[in-house]
Amino acid sequence: MAKKEKKFRPKARLPRGFRDQFAADVSLRLDMIDRIRTVYEHYGFDPLETSSIEYVEALGKFLPDEDRPMGGVFGFQDDDEQWVALRYDLTAPLARLVAEKYDSLAKPFRRYQVGPVWRNEKPGPGRFREFYQFDADTVGTPLMAADAELCVMVAETLATLGLGPDEFKVRVNNRKVLNGVLDAIGAAVDAEDSYVKRLTVLRAIDKLDRLGAGGVRDLLGKGRLDESGDYTDGAGLEPAQIDLVMGFVEAGGGGNAAVCARLAELVKDQSAGLDGVRELEQIAEFVEASGKANQPVEIDPSVVRGLEYYTGPVYEAELTFEVTNEKGQAVQFGSVAGGGRYDDLVSRFKGVQVPATGISIGVDRLLSALIARGALENFTHRGPVVVLVMDQDDIGRYQQMVSELRNAGVRAELYLGGSGMRAQLKYADKRNAPVVVIEGEDERAAAQVTLKDLILGAELSAEIETSEEWRKGQPAQVAVARGDLVAQVKEMLARHTPAGVS
Amino acid sequence: MAKKEKKFRPKARLPRGFRDQFAADVSLRLDMIDRIRTVYEHYGFDPLETSSIEYVEALGKFLPDEDRPMGGVFGFQDDDEQWVALRYDLTAPLARLVAEKYDSLAKPFRRYQVGPVWRNEKPGPGRFREFYQFDADTVGTPLMAADAELCVMVAETLATLGLGPDEFKVRVNNRKVLNGVLDAIGAAVDAEDSYVKRLTVLRAIDKLDRLGAGGVRDLLGKGRLDESGDYTDGAGLEPAQIDLVMGFVEAGGGGNAAVCARLAELVKDQSAGLDGVRELEQIAEFVEASGKANQPVEIDPSVVRGLEYYTGPVYEAELTFEVTNEKGQAVQFGSVAGGGRYDDLVSRFKGVQVPATGISIGVDRLLSALIARGALENFTHRGPVVVLVMDQDDIGRYQQMVSELRNAGVRAELYLGGSGMRAQLKYADKRNAPVVVIEGEDERAAAQVTLKDLILGAELSAEIETSEEWRKGQPAQVAVARGDLVAQVKEMLARHTPAGVS
Repeated sequence: MAKKEKKFRPKARLPRGFRDQFAADVSLRLDMIDRIRTVYEHYGFDPLETSSIEYVEALGKFLPDEDRPMGGVFGFQDDDEQWVALRYDLTAPLARLVAEKYDSLAKPFRRYQVGPVWRNEKPGPGRFREFYQFDADTVGTPLMAADAELCVMVAETLATLGLGPDEFKVRVNNRKVLNGVLDAIGAAVDAEDSYVKRLTVLRAIDKLDRLGAGGVRDLLGKGRLDESGDYTDGAGLEPAQIDLVMGFVEAGGGGNAAVCARLAELVKDQSAGLDGVRELEQIAEFVEASGKANQPVEIDPSVVRGLEYYTGPVYEAELTFEVTNEKGQAVQFGSVAGGGRYDDLVSRFKGVQVPATGISIGVDRLLSALIARGALENFTHRGPVVVLVMDQDDIGRYQQMVSELRNAGVRAELYLGGSGMRAQLKYADKRNAPVVVIEGEDERAAAQVTLKDLILGAELSAEIETSEEWRKGQPAQVAVARGDLVAQVKEMLARHTPAGVS
Repeated sequence: MAKKEKKFRPKARLPRGFRDQFAADVSLRLDMIDRIRTVYEHYGFDPLETSSIEYVEALGKFLPDEDRPMGGVFGFQDDDEQWVALRYDLTAPLARLVAEKYDSLAKPFRRYQVGPVWRNEKPGPGRFREFYQFDADTVGTPLMAADAELCVMVAETLATLGLGPDEFKVRVNNRKVLNGVLDAIGAAVDAEDSYVKRLTVLRAIDKLDRLGAGGVRDLLGKGRLDESGDYTDGAGLEPAQIDLVMGFVEAGGGGNAAVCARLAELVKDQSAGLDGVRELEQIAEFVEASGKANQPVEIDPSVVRGLEYYTGPVYEAELTFEVTNEKGQAVQFGSVAGGGRYDDLVSRFKGVQVPATGISIGVDRLLSALIARGALENFTHRGPVVVLVMDQDDIGRYQQMVSELRNAGVRAELYLGGSGMRAQLKYADKRNAPVVVIEGEDERAAAQVTLKDLILGAELSAEIETSEEWRKGQPAQVAVARGDLVAQVKEMLARHTPAGVS
């Protein structure tokens, strides 16, 4: 039923910055997401799924570059001429939803959402234009208990995912304290040039991890020349002002109570700043009351979080262990989740303030950290038992074996290709099969099947020097009665089942 | 840190045909997807995730309207001026992936993929522009074992989801048989007008369920006037030809062997048609060998499947029970999954044929069928235990209770709003909370807490006539020692745990 022949042959490829993911990666991510989901549900958060597509104006404010309303998103015109776009994050759609359905929501509204977001940005190594985020937000309460709960929940999540208390910390700061310090150095909120100056100061502080105190000092002052010869303009602060900012940034350490006391001292009689310190104290108390004392939630004034819309506490989860990067260098893994309070986000729709706070996990980033750490070792995706087909004309016999295995709860498949024994074994290897089942003429005559333990085989062949030695023994291969097929396969599988996998 | 005031206030709303989904729906879908996933993995299928966005030319061929290359999809120009689009289904991306990564795949390649697809079509009631599909495909084998496996797997999936063997069937047909019949009536494959005639015949057959044999006869002949006064042109077949087609369409029933025999008779010496009958016989044998005799996989010549690209077996899973529609009418639910063999799909990229077969579940459709059937009753999303806050100044006490509950494995949350007792209870109701915990002044003085069993309360209040009677007893409310909080809450929850929920 072919229509007239067309010569055009499209290239089989993906647009830049997009990717396909295969079983190993997809399975690990699913496992991880499931475990995060379990913790979040446990804390009372409910799943939500907003649509992938929103009106551009509903997303607009949160784009990185406000001068290009379409910059950063994948947008297109709907048939009613209105511009719509793929969501850029999961926060803007939440703000839209809350504004739209405010009256029908149980408030405070705790929800989590996991799914892809899309960014129309230049892709790079490990930087994709479609990636997963896992967000939790509490909307409709000004209480610091909500912020503290998110911090504790993320700490518990990382612990649940197999990280020890010395392998991560959740660092908490407060924009109000930072603003108090900025007020103190005379960068008033209202004037346009102060706004730019504040942003430059925030960006400078945000680079503490990367540039150290000296680099930040340069960026707070006249500017900084980096190794590549690029010059970055500074905020132009006076030395005394720089000292004040650095005093604030370096006020961490020695326990949450000590940090709060130091901060109170720094903001002195700035009422906004003192408010912020009080909020941090409340968070510290709630963390204490959560009974998760062993989980590191720390007040740390060097936390900035890039986005402008935060209005109170900001927090981020940081992995503190080193991993080896592509260049073979040991590097700190850094931040895998971040968030904060954004009391103004809903008001752009409704005109009224709706207090809200939330945290977002970078799913792919966290996953690669866990893989690098070996934390997911027990969750390797295991292939099916493969039943080889030694006689294509009698394929029903082999199908019968597959059915027996499946009906007994064993993941199993029939080899469905047309190749010979060697290619079939290669296929089984590629499928990560733990066991293959073989019934050739000899076996059939003896009412037997041969089982090959591919996991044991791989271990042995790694140990044994010569392939001759290996062939002699064939300890990973055994002939069993046809009637014992299921029982024997199950026994073989049980030998290799890692803890945590059923 | 507000920038200069902007007056513009966007409307909080979604583009037409998109939706938000809340906890109840999302949870049920997740449960259902998990269970399908488990069956598919069990059969040896591995998860795959292709990107949401593809080059339009990679999707193009499969759009419903070939004359409008952008019709039906959400497309936009990438920054290199190339047109890209959101995937329209999960089959076209699979064909692209196979063509692109052919050499590195273990073949035959069994994969499943679940995720949203997007259609830029006119939305309607229950008809969204973003919805989930769950696809399984086997690529790289011409063996009918692959098609049969998919049919058996989908039958097992529906059984796993709680449907009985008389509540659904998987119906199988073969395009080759259909083509044999069309050849027999002289609609040759090559001529352009025959192509159109074939399509008209297929579309007519596809309406058997809706219009009955008489309606199909009209559409095969001169045409049909429907109740609304619309006239549909017919295929213009002669009466003898119509008899032949109808003989084919109505050849079902009486067991797969009998149907195959009838079909062989109908296609007579048409070699393509006989090939098709032989394939159906093989599928029937494989279904038999699968040991799932109680699951209804039936050869049924009235199955067409709309899409043009099928080249061999086609199959669909149909629910046979009646549900009540919005108008209160009892209607058959109909098809929830469909697929077939499409040996030509990869060749448009590569120029070589890659045999493939696959089935797609309409996730949202199946889910609403299961909900209508009550098959997911045991998987209702349950809210968290809510600890009320009776004294805002001492919120730490209540946080402490929440922590104890959570640490003991109970889903629990602190009420984080600022409202009084009545509003807090209303919140707990809205949250679907099974239990609320109350510690007022009296309780505190007595070192007690009050537990309210909201599930029992709802049951009782449905039974009891007057609210006075209800108030007297308060059997759903109990005061327990503060120290017994966790144990008593757990006991209360255990009373209501439905089977299958932990």
